[in-house]
Amino acid sequence: MQLYIIGTVAALLTTFGFVPQVIKMFRTKSVRDISLLTFIQFSVGMSCWTIYGFHLRDIIIISANGIGVVILIIAIGLYLYYAGRHQKTYEGSIS
Amino acid sequence: MQLYIIGTVAALLTTFGFVPQVIKMFRTKSVRDISLLTFIQFSVGMSCWTIYGFHLRDIIIISANGIGVVILIIAIGLYLYYAGRHQKTYEGSIS
Repeated sequence: MQLYIIGTVAALLTTFGFVPQVIKMFRTKSVRDISLLTFIQFSVGMSCWTIYGFHLRDIIIISANGIGVVILIIAIGLYLYYAGRHQKTYEGSIS
Repeated sequence: MQLYIIGTVAALLTTFGFVPQVIKMFRTKSVRDISLLTFIQFSVGMSCWTIYGFHLRDIIIISANGIGVVILIIAIGLYLYYAGRHQKTYEGSIS
């Protein structure tokens, strides 16, 4: 039972881990210090976890990482939108 | 075998997911747009995953999340250091 609670808390915290970052991007409309590569790396990684979950037929791995990928797609979309709006003030490099 | 490769790629990408962000923080020495809450949420979440891994005696879950927690402690340390250096230009709120 205790193990179940720790696993659930772990899954919830990491699945929704980028929500505070998305909210902050939305509020400040500034993304200069944020690493786009970290978003891309996590979205590819969580997509692989989702595929891995389908192979294992594990609904927890599928749903936790599937939701995570959706949040990351929103994060990448917001990043590109706000980076585009402030393009001239940026160095133009992806990092 | 294919499943093993996908699982390994997934674990590597998410374990080292915050490395590009840490490198960017170190290079730009600016953290204004970064969400500290995302770092804290992932570090607590990955700590729970590590405990969960010990219960399951699963060395992959333990090592992947243990390394992730170390990277996040470095990220939080850098964030607090650079935020402290630029304290006057910040709003002072944790988000």
